Amino acid sequence: MPKVGIIMGSTSDMPVMQDAIDILREFNIDIEVDIVSAHRTPEKLFDYSKNAHNRGINVIIAGAGGAAHLPGMVASLSPLPVIGVPVKSSNSIDGWDSVLSILQMPGGVPVATVALNGAKNAGILAAQIIGSSNSEILETIIDYKESLKQKVIDGAKSISTNK
Amino acid sequence: MPKVGIIMGSTSDMPVMQDAIDILREFNIDIEVDIVSAHRTPEKLFDYSKNAHNRGINVIIAGAGGAAHLPGMVASLSPLPVIGVPVKSSNSIDGWDSVLSILQMPGGVPVATVALNGAKNAGILAAQIIGSSNSEILETIIDYKESLKQKVIDGAKSISTNK
Amino acid sequence: MPKVGIIMGSTSDMPVMQDAIDILREFNIDIEVDIVSAHRTPEKLFDYSKNAHNRGINVIIAGAGGAAHLPGMVASLSPLPVIGVPVKSSNSIDGWDSVLSILQMPGGVPVATVALNGAKNAGILAAQIIGSSNSEILETIIDYKESLKQKVIDGAKSISTNK
Amino acid sequence: MPKVGIIMGSTSDMPVMQDAIDILREFNIDIEVDIVSAHRTPEKLFDYSKNAHNRGINVIIAGAGGAAHLPGMVASLSPLPVIGVPVKSSNSIDGWDSVLSILQMPGGVPVATVALNGAKNAGILAAQIIGSSNSEILETIIDYKESLKQKVIDGAKSISTNK
Amino acid sequence: MPKVGIIMGSTSDMPVMQDAIDILREFNIDIEVDIVSAHRTPEKLFDYSKNAHNRGINVIIAGAGGAAHLPGMVASLSPLPVIGVPVKSSNSIDGWDSVLSILQMPGGVPVATVALNGAKNAGILAAQIIGSSNSEILETIIDYKESLKQKVIDGAKSISTNK
Amino acid sequence: MPKVGIIMGSTSDMPVMQDAIDILREFNIDIEVDIVSAHRTPEKLFDYSKNAHNRGINVIIAGAGGAAHLPGMVASLSPLPVIGVPVKSSNSIDGWDSVLSILQMPGGVPVATVALNGAKNAGILAAQIIGSSNSEILETIIDYKESLKQKVIDGAKSISTNK
Amino acid sequence: MPKVGIIMGSTSDMPVMQDAIDILREFNIDIEVDIVSAHRTPEKLFDYSKNAHNRGINVIIAGAGGAAHLPGMVASLSPLPVIGVPVKSSNSIDGWDSVLSILQMPGGVPVATVALNGAKNAGILAAQIIGSSNSEILETIIDYKESLKQKVIDGAKSISTNK
Amino acid sequence: MPKVGIIMGSTSDMPVMQDAIDILREFNIDIEVDIVSAHRTPEKLFDYSKNAHNRGINVIIAGAGGAAHLPGMVASLSPLPVIGVPVKSSNSIDGWDSVLSILQMPGGVPVATVALNGAKNAGILAAQIIGSSNSEILETIIDYKESLKQKVIDGAKSISTNK
Repeated sequence: MPKVGIIMGSTSDMPVMQDAIDILREFNIDIEVDIVSAHRTPEKLFDYSKNAHNRGINVIIAGAGGAAHLPGMVASLSPLPVIGVPVKSSNSIDGWDSVLSILQMPGGVPVATVALNGAKNAGILAAQIIGSSNSEILETIIDYKESLKQKVIDGAKSISTNK
Repeated sequence: MPKVGIIMGSTSDMPVMQDAIDILREFNIDIEVDIVSAHRTPEKLFDYSKNAHNRGINVIIAGAGGAAHLPGMVASLSPLPVIGVPVKSSNSIDGWDSVLSILQMPGGVPVATVALNGAKNAGILAAQIIGSSNSEILETIIDYKESLKQKVIDGAKSISTNK
Repeated sequence: MPKVGIIMGSTSDMPVMQDAIDILREFNIDIEVDIVSAHRTPEKLFDYSKNAHNRGINVIIAGAGGAAHLPGMVASLSPLPVIGVPVKSSNSIDGWDSVLSILQMPGGVPVATVALNGAKNAGILAAQIIGSSNSEILETIIDYKESLKQKVIDGAKSISTNK
Repeated sequence: MPKVGIIMGSTSDMPVMQDAIDILREFNIDIEVDIVSAHRTPEKLFDYSKNAHNRGINVIIAGAGGAAHLPGMVASLSPLPVIGVPVKSSNSIDGWDSVLSILQMPGGVPVATVALNGAKNAGILAAQIIGSSNSEILETIIDYKESLKQKVIDGAKSISTNK
Repeated sequence: MPKVGIIMGSTSDMPVMQDAIDILREFNIDIEVDIVSAHRTPEKLFDYSKNAHNRGINVIIAGAGGAAHLPGMVASLSPLPVIGVPVKSSNSIDGWDSVLSILQMPGGVPVATVALNGAKNAGILAAQIIGSSNSEILETIIDYKESLKQKVIDGAKSISTNK
Repeated sequence: MPKVGIIMGSTSDMPVMQDAIDILREFNIDIEVDIVSAHRTPEKLFDYSKNAHNRGINVIIAGAGGAAHLPGMVASLSPLPVIGVPVKSSNSIDGWDSVLSILQMPGGVPVATVALNGAKNAGILAAQIIGSSNSEILETIIDYKESLKQKVIDGAKSISTNK
Repeated sequence: MPKVGIIMGSTSDMPVMQDAIDILREFNIDIEVDIVSAHRTPEKLFDYSKNAHNRGINVIIAGAGGAAHLPGMVASLSPLPVIGVPVKSSNSIDGWDSVLSILQMPGGVPVATVALNGAKNAGILAAQIIGSSNSEILETIIDYKESLKQKVIDGAKSISTNK
Repeated sequence: MPKVGIIMGSTSDMPVMQDAIDILREFNIDIEVDIVSAHRTPEKLFDYSKNAHNRGINVIIAGAGGAAHLPGMVASLSPLPVIGVPVKSSNSIDGWDSVLSILQMPGGVPVATVALNGAKNAGILAAQIIGSSNSEILETIIDYKESLKQKVIDGAKSISTNK
């Protein structure tokens, strides 16, 4: 039963992180969602990260803004692959703070970083990670990519008649 | 037989990418290394990306510098998880070009981006992805993280006597 | 029959790219507009780029946002001059991502990059490229530049009476 | 007899701009090289730009560093396509000054900007512009792109034996 | 009769540049306002810059956005002190383009650059330049600085009762 | 017995952090130095941060590079004032990563950030924090500031004779 | 009776700086609020900074925008710890100007810098500085951190039922 | 007897600031050089700035690095035009800190900012300010600009024979 843990630093990150939830539901992958703040609930961060793989979680998606330490701290404590979503928070310096706080991890502790506010891609990446050893989910990914193609083709048709 | 494909845009990226090769060998994970240039060998890019998962590759690591399109284009063509390594090339604008070209992928096509020149972390992340469904490799990761801890503890001892 | 191919990564780029369409129509240069996504329709990207010069296209204008690989990938596959338009997409980091993804191409594969959202200038540049071997269109450009001058002179008059 | 005019703001730009000279000579395209400073010889800038197309020049390549006004001012005065090469000068702020001074031209006056210090690509782009209406030079470009491919394939072979 | 010439690249810069007009009028310094576009009316730029000092202009204020070449080109053609006002235009990359295009002038051709959209300060600086050899205007500056002080003192009073 | 705890993420930060050690010794303030890595020894980070104030530590100085989570995580776990020193590590993106990872903390968990590589200032700030309730150390600070003044005055003398 | 002096460059900074006032009142720490402009009331800056510690002020919080010299100048004149709050002013270049003007102080004169618009954190940091030698206020900080935890736990509950 | 006051924050700025000294001596304009540190000798800053215009100084050039407050603080205290030279100091973040600390002054207190390390241009600008009311020095400037032209023409000759 593959499972993805989705956590974020604050309920204010939910509008961005919802995209990860939605795409993983679309892929029929089990998820678990929680609020874990590196700076406000460090003990919960420890418990969550130390135990996730024992509870059957395969991949963790962590979103946070500003000086975003959540993804990196989870990566420091868990052996699982951790996907980091930089969230552009209200007093962010154009998103650079969360991008660099998540991306520039030291040697030994990687975080798989996606685009600013890129929670949808975090969900797809989590599915691809599961799909790398699960042929059914790999097929789901292949189908999903086909559907992207179709939307572009439909878009191309619409402009050739309307522009 | 889990396998990681490591590709890069140019032989000049090898000094950086060697770190991914070394750490994966240390983990006893089979790898395959090749030069694939998005801009100079686009047909090879297509062939490689379309077929990697059929050859038993589970994860692809792609490193490139400047306007670094290799990781994103592989991600567009393969259903596998793709890890992107931004390489600071000789005429790079401080590495921002490769970081942003790899990180800021559009919705639907994620690249798991690591730090600038962070090929070692790309290798570890590839191992973690395999480890998420392979308990033996998961144990390797857990052991590796323990070894990081030990080095810091040894460093702490050295400064308490020398500073 | 000189012809400019205008492509973009998504229908959402059309409000920006329309400026290229409009100015080339104003110059009576034949155009062809299409949606080609590097990441969602890579096969179409290949077909388009490989064949454009055989269909009589002289210049290609390609617009894209975020990690904008379309212009560079077209340039890698086509012998024609490719003009890249960085589009400021919704989750762009202030436009830096698309600017650097298009501008910082490696040696061997140039993209003629214009300003952020500068589709109008892309259209004018395409006309200048055609005009460099076509004296009628060169005259059109010379006339166009005169008209720019006149607008500034009219503006100068208006402020000397209103300020 | 198509011809490319190569100008630069200072003799100190020559080490960078030499790459444009070399590649165009390799393509057997006639060139003309001069020093024209927007800020130190504005009259020469005027004369050069106003008359280049009358002397048979088809494309102008202009390189400059810092607050790099040369490419944009030439573009304002000439109907020809102007390729701008941002040069990283000694007191440059990481090259951002020349990149933005050349790239961010206002509507009506495009400069075809290439990568920082990308004079080689400026030369190739000039050849592509000429090739868009000259099938012999178009063939030269197609051959050149094939040669790029071969170098990558050779590089790939070398690593498979040496790594 | 000292006089300040105020020019800008486009009527769209007027809302910003009006602040320079207003403060100089408040200081009873004669001004002259015009639209001069480096890229659209290069001949007018030449005439204006070459002759301003012969017409009795003492200082030139030049405002422009994007790849802002107006202040630097005026400085290249006139012996007078030129004050540059970076204007944040509609497709500006956060104002960096105009700031760097105006500030980073090469050795030999200075532009006295003020803050982004800082036309008011450009006006004050012009007055200070005139005041450096005109004791009446120097007194005006001294009085103006006193008035700034008073506003802060009044502000301090208001918060001590309202906060 | 006031005491300052100085920690850093790695022994490679020691050349920068030594400045904090030196200045605090010059001020005769007791210090304690250790290596604590947020990412490699998270348990030690917890122990250190939770207990420092119970051991008599009054201020903590934490230095780290890249995605620098150490200062913020200590601040999340300790009630003491935490001073963060951004260290420019070898693969840093010009220091922006460590500056923003330390500075941009969320509401509730401040880190007192000093300049890039500014360990000396971190030491002085720690002394000032202790001095804010300790008149002897306050006097030390006042004397130190006088000594800075004297060095400038001596420098001024040297240039008036040598320039 | 410990006291915090809160100053800012202009009444327009009050909406941001109010957060420091509010949190310190919540902690029952005496405050004193004033407007002191480095550039408009330099004499007041001198008087304030030279005398604050003699009036019983223990910590100074200084907020300012743009080229924000207030915190650094106060730090140059007072032996007390100075906390700097970068304020994003109306013509700021994305806040970078105030952040760098406050953070990058030279050796000898530290400013404890907090996040952009981070006045709340400045207030908490001031309390922590006082708490480092005042066990009652240290307890207040410990309680405050507990309350942060509770809010996250409540947030976590709300999403598990609503998402 | 017009005079330019040249000050800098530290003797370490002298290698950069020497260029201002040299060019003003070449123009036979009287200068006075001093070290004045905003942060280490604030009283000297006050005395210098308040009295410079009474001693016959016409223009002040102030150079400083990092969080460079010297030019702005002088401008706040003196009615004279102040030219700011951003100096790239050893721990500078690529020069951005000094550029923004000097350039982004609030309304009412301008600093005439020149390029990073642009002390030569600061000297020329000072001469132009004096020349705006002194026809002899205006002629010197006109002659100087001619000499710049000649160097470019000589450079152009050299490349036409050597390239």
